[in-house]
Amino acid sequence: MSTVPRIVILGAGYGGVLTALRLQKELNYNEANVTLVNKHDYHYITTHLHMPAAGTDDPENARVNISKLIDEFKIDFVKSTVVQIKPVEKKVILEDGTLSYDYLVIGLGGEAETFGIPGLQQHAMNIRSINSVRLIREHIEYQFAKFKREPERRDYLTFVIGGAGFTGIEFIGELADRIPKLCKQFDVDPGLVKIVNIEAAPTALPGFDPELVDYAVQVLTNKGVTFKIGTAIKECKPEGVVLATGETIPAATVVWTGGIRGNRLVEQAGFEAMRGRVKVDPYLRTAQYENVFIVGDCSLLFNDEGKPFPPTAQIAMQQGVNCAFNLVASIRNQPLREFKFDNKGVVASLGKGEAVGIVFGKKLKGGFAAFMKKLIDMRYLYIIGGIGLVLRKGKL
Amino acid sequence: MSTVPRIVILGAGYGGVLTALRLQKELNYNEANVTLVNKHDYHYITTHLHMPAAGTDDPENARVNISKLIDEFKIDFVKSTVVQIKPVEKKVILEDGTLSYDYLVIGLGGEAETFGIPGLQQHAMNIRSINSVRLIREHIEYQFAKFKREPERRDYLTFVIGGAGFTGIEFIGELADRIPKLCKQFDVDPGLVKIVNIEAAPTALPGFDPELVDYAVQVLTNKGVTFKIGTAIKECKPEGVVLATGETIPAATVVWTGGIRGNRLVEQAGFEAMRGRVKVDPYLRTAQYENVFIVGDCSLLFNDEGKPFPPTAQIAMQQGVNCAFNLVASIRNQPLREFKFDNKGVVASLGKGEAVGIVFGKKLKGGFAAFMKKLIDMRYLYIIGGIGLVLRKGKL
Repeated sequence: MSTVPRIVILGAGYGGVLTALRLQKELNYNEANVTLVNKHDYHYITTHLHMPAAGTDDPENARVNISKLIDEFKIDFVKSTVVQIKPVEKKVILEDGTLSYDYLVIGLGGEAETFGIPGLQQHAMNIRSINSVRLIREHIEYQFAKFKREPERRDYLTFVIGGAGFTGIEFIGELADRIPKLCKQFDVDPGLVKIVNIEAAPTALPGFDPELVDYAVQVLTNKGVTFKIGTAIKECKPEGVVLATGETIPAATVVWTGGIRGNRLVEQAGFEAMRGRVKVDPYLRTAQYENVFIVGDCSLLFNDEGKPFPPTAQIAMQQGVNCAFNLVASIRNQPLREFKFDNKGVVASLGKGEAVGIVFGKKLKGGFAAFMKKLIDMRYLYIIGGIGLVLRKGKL
Repeated sequence: MSTVPRIVILGAGYGGVLTALRLQKELNYNEANVTLVNKHDYHYITTHLHMPAAGTDDPENARVNISKLIDEFKIDFVKSTVVQIKPVEKKVILEDGTLSYDYLVIGLGGEAETFGIPGLQQHAMNIRSINSVRLIREHIEYQFAKFKREPERRDYLTFVIGGAGFTGIEFIGELADRIPKLCKQFDVDPGLVKIVNIEAAPTALPGFDPELVDYAVQVLTNKGVTFKIGTAIKECKPEGVVLATGETIPAATVVWTGGIRGNRLVEQAGFEAMRGRVKVDPYLRTAQYENVFIVGDCSLLFNDEGKPFPPTAQIAMQQGVNCAFNLVASIRNQPLREFKFDNKGVVASLGKGEAVGIVFGKKLKGGFAAFMKKLIDMRYLYIIGGIGLVLRKGKL
């Protein structure tokens, strides 16, 4: 039996990829065997998915082959789906095999949280993966084609987006940009199309700066979006949504962006989890198993104000870096380092040339915010894939 | 009341457009008022529709704005849908008005003939118009996106084409070319996709040269198409087709190209019609009304061998020219001319770089036939729109 410790990373999202890249850089030759497991042979850029979902960008620009990111001389890659995690036995069951580990990193990402609202699971689509956004895009285009054959079906041209968080708002911005083009392509009167955003919270972009929220809502309203803020969806049916107010909105397209929970696999593995998120210590380890680290949407960690960190790309990336540091330190019997979030700010795109955000503590809106958003996207490509990836996938 | 005779042309398909263009050229100033009525403000090139249906060409290349074709100083154009033809009263009821005429030209085109096969009307799509082919294209792409979310649904990747006539065969050729690209785009294993052609007649391309039929079937079989010739569809269901043999083919996409009938409006107008086609005299006039001409798919005329002319673009165009001649002759009290079909031959495309055909009595197959097909398409653009249209829409 090898005495080289074995590290298995589950998931090649923001957290998993950053863990892998940092390990690749920091580990000495033969200091550990690292295996990255992912369902697809590509990593996708979740923060970019609102564009291919609306059809304003090619899905290819939202994914990168894992072979282009990691050095396969240093890190093994296994394309497979995780079926079960067995922390007591230090084993991971894949759909086509089993992996043993000394250290495990769980970066399996989140799932849509539907809060038990009937029908959302069955009838709404989610912006969660390359496959899911290709579905949304094709679904939307198909509705335009169907409308031309059944012009009495106005519901084909009604697009309901549940949730006005970052994903919902960014998707709406793109969709509002795409609609005029689709109308032209399919000879549809743009006046017949409705984009309706429904948010149960009392504001769009909950937790965001109110001045910027107002600006965002104004920009999107000017693009023709109808907001129903402070309004809950009671039920989603094949023919549309029923609101808590009793109002029914007939719509053939419902996209749900209203919540994220952790992965069900971590609950099934016996970790103590809240909505699929497992409480980790400041070193990102689970309470029960010191050799199991969790990064990204499946981890539950509280900030200095006692609030849980939200499931964002920025946090997952920083957790990946911290996790890799602590893995190396564990192997070398050196002291671990607590995770500290370094908030670089956040920008929400509102479609072409428009965005709102806070970067390094400064409020931004309009064209400059949109420019910053692109720089942030390119910075990420640079971090994971160097300048070559920026040139291949980045767009200014 | 004006003494200038009024000519109304219903439909801007091959027959209607050629009638209008010839009248525009031949009529002297103030010799007649000509009004062309069409449901859309564009003419579409039906023989090209198999390409946008499969997604191998843009629908824009299969249509031309009517304002680019006719001289609106000489011919009035009304964009409207015909609701009823009243030959006794010499009136046409439009959805938003009424037109009176002295001479009527009916060129309303055909409809899909489903021969009473249950479910075809409801669950199969047709290659009949810009709107219908955009629907097929979007539907096909949507199936690929859906399959990625429900990989057990192999029926999403099964494409059944009913009918192996010209339209069916040409569509299959394009679809077989498009499938590998769609598979790449959606990360689908091409081995999972099935294209099945079902034809009740004992041969593909019934009536065509047997050597060329064999060649066509071989080319398409090599592209992965499965042929079920001499096999009738018994029923079309939302989940697929049931064959006369009892076999069921689960398929989320069924395109029916197996028959064309005339327009139901001509039956409702009281003309004596067989499957929507009205028997016309050698001058293209109806038996009951000497001032009503019928061109294209709604006309029923027999060739020298006593067989009805098939509903093809070539025949409709030549009928349009003949009809215009006879309208001018009628107005000038000159002798009419009998319609004679000048068979220039026919080429069926089998996808990129492959075709079969007979041109000027000579059998062609392979790359040269495909080249001839493109020349024929360009010749048509030249006839209706001059060299400018060839340059804008034509492709070699």
